[in-house]
Amino acid sequence: MARQTRSAVEGSVNGVDVDRLKSTGEAMKAVPGLAKFTFRVNNRWMKGALNRTTIGDFHGAGAENHRDGFVIDNAQPALVAGGDEAPNPVEYLLHALVGCLTTTLVYHASIQGVRIQAVESQVEGQLDMRSFLGVREDYPGGFEGVNVRFQVKADCSEAELAHLMDVARRRSPVANFVLRAVPTSVTCEAM
Amino acid sequence: MARQTRSAVEGSVNGVDVDRLKSTGEAMKAVPGLAKFTFRVNNRWMKGALNRTTIGDFHGAGAENHRDGFVIDNAQPALVAGGDEAPNPVEYLLHALVGCLTTTLVYHASIQGVRIQAVESQVEGQLDMRSFLGVREDYPGGFEGVNVRFQVKADCSEAELAHLMDVARRRSPVANFVLRAVPTSVTCEAM
Repeated sequence: MARQTRSAVEGSVNGVDVDRLKSTGEAMKAVPGLAKFTFRVNNRWMKGALNRTTIGDFHGAGAENHRDGFVIDNAQPALVAGGDEAPNPVEYLLHALVGCLTTTLVYHASIQGVRIQAVESQVEGQLDMRSFLGVREDYPGGFEGVNVRFQVKADCSEAELAHLMDVARRRSPVANFVLRAVPTSVTCEAM
Repeated sequence: MARQTRSAVEGSVNGVDVDRLKSTGEAMKAVPGLAKFTFRVNNRWMKGALNRTTIGDFHGAGAENHRDGFVIDNAQPALVAGGDEAPNPVEYLLHALVGCLTTTLVYHASIQGVRIQAVESQVEGQLDMRSFLGVREDYPGGFEGVNVRFQVKADCSEAELAHLMDVARRRSPVANFVLRAVPTSVTCEAM
């Protein structure tokens, strides 16, 4: 099937409901308050390096949105004094980053009528553990570098693909979070 | 049981193998190269907003470390044109942030012999979806703010707890990632 021109794209492309995406975008353009979303997670420490997150309702499009929700665990491998029951937080962060880039790429390809056959990616993050473990006093001690590699198969030119990847990098919320500091507060109270 | 003094802490505290944590730290102090870890994830697009991450081996303490590994999915709620099969990347990011802060808090409390009964937390992230959906052209479009609230029950004073939370905020790798920009590269090739 020949690729549709941009103006002709409708229905589902790459499994993305483009009509819904476009009508949502139009509504947000008309009423910017509808674009204000709040995502939430709750976490509870279990033991050692094991803690459990519950994810449910979120606020978006001017209303509370109910979901049955999800439960996911953080842990650490034995080498980092954990029981290896689940991925560790650093791995979840890389998962969030690459997943958000992928979804943003796929959504914008779909809006433009570009059919995608495959998207694969590999991410590596380098970390010096001495700050985390308290044996080095200079802060901060986060990632020293992160590398993301993508391979994409789609019915577009290499130039169009490079443009789509650029759109993904700029419009992905998690990539934006990672690429710059954001206002973040952390409070703690005894109970 | 009375709280142990710092020098007397040994064995397992709060389910954390403090002996292992300390010997690992000492080894890294002696041979800094052992502290260089590389965490990796691989991702594959499934359809629409659904993509799948595989997490397995990592490099650390001077060697490749094998794990059977984990498989986790990213999705989007229906309101964001997804099938809601899993949390979305933004929620995973908040999960990583709060989990890393919790583990860093628990590890350093354990090293200091502070017994913990409970740690609970709630995270909210505010996001304007217009950049993601392509209806606003000013970049960047990530989180506008993130708030993390902790409640901790432990056998220490409020001042000691405040200090532990400060240590967690400064030494948590994910918090460091979130609080500042890190060198991040994204490449893309056609296949």
